[in-house]
Amino acid sequence: MKLLLIASALLPSALALWPLPTSYTNGTTPLTLSKSFNIKIDIANPPADLVAAVSRAKGYLQNDKLEALVIDRGASSASAIAKAKSLPSLTLSLTGKGSVQSISAQAVAPLESRVEGANSTLGLFRGLATFGQIWFDLNGATYTLSAPIQISDSPAYPYRGFMLDTARNYFPVADIKRTIDAMSWVKINTLHWHIVDSQSFPLEVPGFLSLSQKGAYSATSVYSPSDVKDIITYAAARGIDVIPEIDTPGHTSVISKAFPEHIACAEATPWASFANEPPAGQLRLASEATVNFTGSLLKAAAGLFESHYFSTGGDEVNANCYTQDNETQASLESTNKTFAQALDTFVQSNHAALRSVGKSAVVWEEMVLANPVTLANDTIVMVWISSDDVQAVAETGYRIVHAASDYFYLDCGHGGWVGDFPTGNSWCDPFKTWQYAYSFDPTANLTAAQSELVIGGQSLLWTEQSSSANLDSTTWPRAASTAELFWSGPGGNVDTALPRLHEVVYRFRQRGVAANSLQPEWCALRPFACDLTA
Amino acid sequence: MKLLLIASALLPSALALWPLPTSYTNGTTPLTLSKSFNIKIDIANPPADLVAAVSRAKGYLQNDKLEALVIDRGASSASAIAKAKSLPSLTLSLTGKGSVQSISAQAVAPLESRVEGANSTLGLFRGLATFGQIWFDLNGATYTLSAPIQISDSPAYPYRGFMLDTARNYFPVADIKRTIDAMSWVKINTLHWHIVDSQSFPLEVPGFLSLSQKGAYSATSVYSPSDVKDIITYAAARGIDVIPEIDTPGHTSVISKAFPEHIACAEATPWASFANEPPAGQLRLASEATVNFTGSLLKAAAGLFESHYFSTGGDEVNANCYTQDNETQASLESTNKTFAQALDTFVQSNHAALRSVGKSAVVWEEMVLANPVTLANDTIVMVWISSDDVQAVAETGYRIVHAASDYFYLDCGHGGWVGDFPTGNSWCDPFKTWQYAYSFDPTANLTAAQSELVIGGQSLLWTEQSSSANLDSTTWPRAASTAELFWSGPGGNVDTALPRLHEVVYRFRQRGVAANSLQPEWCALRPFACDLTA
Repeated sequence: MKLLLIASALLPSALALWPLPTSYTNGTTPLTLSKSFNIKIDIANPPADLVAAVSRAKGYLQNDKLEALVIDRGASSASAIAKAKSLPSLTLSLTGKGSVQSISAQAVAPLESRVEGANSTLGLFRGLATFGQIWFDLNGATYTLSAPIQISDSPAYPYRGFMLDTARNYFPVADIKRTIDAMSWVKINTLHWHIVDSQSFPLEVPGFLSLSQKGAYSATSVYSPSDVKDIITYAAARGIDVIPEIDTPGHTSVISKAFPEHIACAEATPWASFANEPPAGQLRLASEATVNFTGSLLKAAAGLFESHYFSTGGDEVNANCYTQDNETQASLESTNKTFAQALDTFVQSNHAALRSVGKSAVVWEEMVLANPVTLANDTIVMVWISSDDVQAVAETGYRIVHAASDYFYLDCGHGGWVGDFPTGNSWCDPFKTWQYAYSFDPTANLTAAQSELVIGGQSLLWTEQSSSANLDSTTWPRAASTAELFWSGPGGNVDTALPRLHEVVYRFRQRGVAANSLQPEWCALRPFACDLTA
Repeated sequence: MKLLLIASALLPSALALWPLPTSYTNGTTPLTLSKSFNIKIDIANPPADLVAAVSRAKGYLQNDKLEALVIDRGASSASAIAKAKSLPSLTLSLTGKGSVQSISAQAVAPLESRVEGANSTLGLFRGLATFGQIWFDLNGATYTLSAPIQISDSPAYPYRGFMLDTARNYFPVADIKRTIDAMSWVKINTLHWHIVDSQSFPLEVPGFLSLSQKGAYSATSVYSPSDVKDIITYAAARGIDVIPEIDTPGHTSVISKAFPEHIACAEATPWASFANEPPAGQLRLASEATVNFTGSLLKAAAGLFESHYFSTGGDEVNANCYTQDNETQASLESTNKTFAQALDTFVQSNHAALRSVGKSAVVWEEMVLANPVTLANDTIVMVWISSDDVQAVAETGYRIVHAASDYFYLDCGHGGWVGDFPTGNSWCDPFKTWQYAYSFDPTANLTAAQSELVIGGQSLLWTEQSSSANLDSTTWPRAASTAELFWSGPGGNVDTALPRLHEVVYRFRQRGVAANSLQPEWCALRPFACDLTA
């Protein structure tokens, strides 16, 4: 991805780009956008989603109206801006010939074939996001003080995600789409959608409608196939792949509402003996009927999505639930299998069902560590329990997505949520600051070969204590910190990052995303003045 | 305050009232509100604010449309509701004769003369809030399953507050008014408005306009006299007194923008040597000119407010700032005063200025502990540093408001906010859960006589890391927990409180306040099912 602006003076030392590009140079010459500024597409028959992206980019340039984050908000640059040359247009072009793929097609391609850095419509889209971060407003003039600017850019890691749990509490489609827009502004390319869980089943799966009819929180707290289509289309046009997750065999209590025969220990009490959180309930993984049911359900759900990937979860399988379940014990006995063998069969069957419709599997770390099963070589493993587990996962040879609770869980640090627990803290306290996530080293303790297995990482919002009410402010700007870590690579400096991250906050707000304040505005307008040793 | 409803069956064990009334009984008979339900005021010439409050109460009854928080959201009660008697009207009346004060007049009266429990328009207003919590919606019917209901109620403590800091980050008037509405729903009666601080001076003070002109974050980030009038009028009509704070002599750096002669160590660096947070700057308390300036400023600011109270702050006075300030040292020498004597003169002068316009002083705990000064007997002292300091403050004999950081600071637990501090935690970590605040004992370690000094308590939102983006979700429902503590008295049970607090959340949302989720909705619909030992 390259940006070049043809066209000085008082800017803070860095352009406020987020994530930071691979390389850039800038001058100190003021430049404005022409009142008739246009973005031209120098591509024959440009894809419709690129045309639409250009239209949105022009909208941001017109509507952001973000004043520079300096004490006078840019006023002292007024005469320089008034005298500045104006940029009449930006031209998007690709090198080489041949057919041009749409952004959407590239967004959902397998990770290894996605081109985000250059010479693709997806690369151009990423460049548009960068271009939109260059400009400030002063009395209606859209300007930079930093021309000429030259940027080369490509991501350090192919997978940069955000996970949203829509099962503990439901989020309307509008929340998800607003989040997708925000993700695209900081070049996050994957929405890991933890759609359903033990508490609710908001997904309408063709052929399995009773699951959502009986398991959604309400008739309106559902994602219909057209909602899913809306979300994945919206996401893809913004360079984002939506990887769905239906967690199995644990975290499935709600399935008992419609298919009680497939769930062991459904709502058994005390819940803490049967599950990590209420309600208890797991798929009867040793039952052939349940194996078939699960494979069919996953296949039907997978048909709603375009992604090459589908997560079958696999975390927090509770052994006691199965030990106490007569049906499971009978199934194990009749098939002469151990629990581990039955789990292996269950997972292999599910993954085969998904592979039959073109999907590669994503799993949580237990599927290679605590409860290892047979997995295809292309399986992606998400580390969640602790970053300490990364090395062990790497030793299994599968591709790794960093999602460790000790760095990337946005929900931690708000105390325990279970009832009748007055002094309860949450297991993943404390709160994960943006600085802490930013300091993460994706290849710590890994060999060079193991490091190749790391395909990226993500922030995660589990929603026991979250809802529409705090979605934006809990997610942003912290998820942007992780986005820069995996786009720009590790080793970033929290001190120099902070002024740029303030700009993320202020620009997001101008675009309708309620990102939270990192500091008093006094500090936001005075880079480095609120540093510990300033 | 008494409520009596003339008119059963499947309700969870308690009415979901918040705060819990002093006493109540309820039956199990279904009752609906008549389609033509009316609230009558049986008072000759009722005050306009009572008439308006009744109109708002009717609006909530019509618009809340809150379905019961049970699994089927009330559907199984449909036939009982259809057959229920309907309540045609509610009548508000007062006993005795004589002139009737408005809600607004009572809301701003001295605490000791305020009647919230009975036989006042303010008491009726509190009753309307209770009445509004009784009803649920099923297919357009507004119903309870718990008639007849009889409630007697009055507050355990006269001061039940919420503090908002509008200096670290600015909050639009609409945010403050929305917060005032929410406060009134849970019978909070005081907005402690920490208006200005070292970072910004958003208050337009007549005669001192340069303070906001030069010290507000922007020309639009100000509270004009008409804004203040709007806010205090809005608050008073909702039974809420607005106690302003202009913190002195510390936390005043921003005054240097307009009056540099009055500020020591203005923006001195390293800030950490001169203040607890950037920017440094304190009033030159030993200077006669500054003493006069401050008294005049406080008096002018006090003129904007109706409250009987005004806080002059007094926290975190930094000694080094004054030691290093030549002007202050010269003043001390020329007046032959110690720092402590100068501070005493400064505070006495300020409080005298306020008293001349009818205001009693409120101060932070340092004014009786770390830097004790001469105070009038009616001064109210707020404990903030630690609840461990309550006993020492009580020993000084002044009235006490609980505002201790270890229980009531809503902002704690989100990590350090100063820059270049990658592993920084906040001094007041961890996050204060609603359960923890709820468990506070206001008279722990106090004698009976000392216990009489405790007039109440409050939640506080300091806004270094807060903004419009998270105001609602950070404040609610946690501030409601503290509201119940000080209305209903201590000793509440977090287990039985939780289902009621869920209702606060869900009802607030129906009214446009984005209260955050305490648990998965699965738990909210199943009281006690998510308890630790359920």
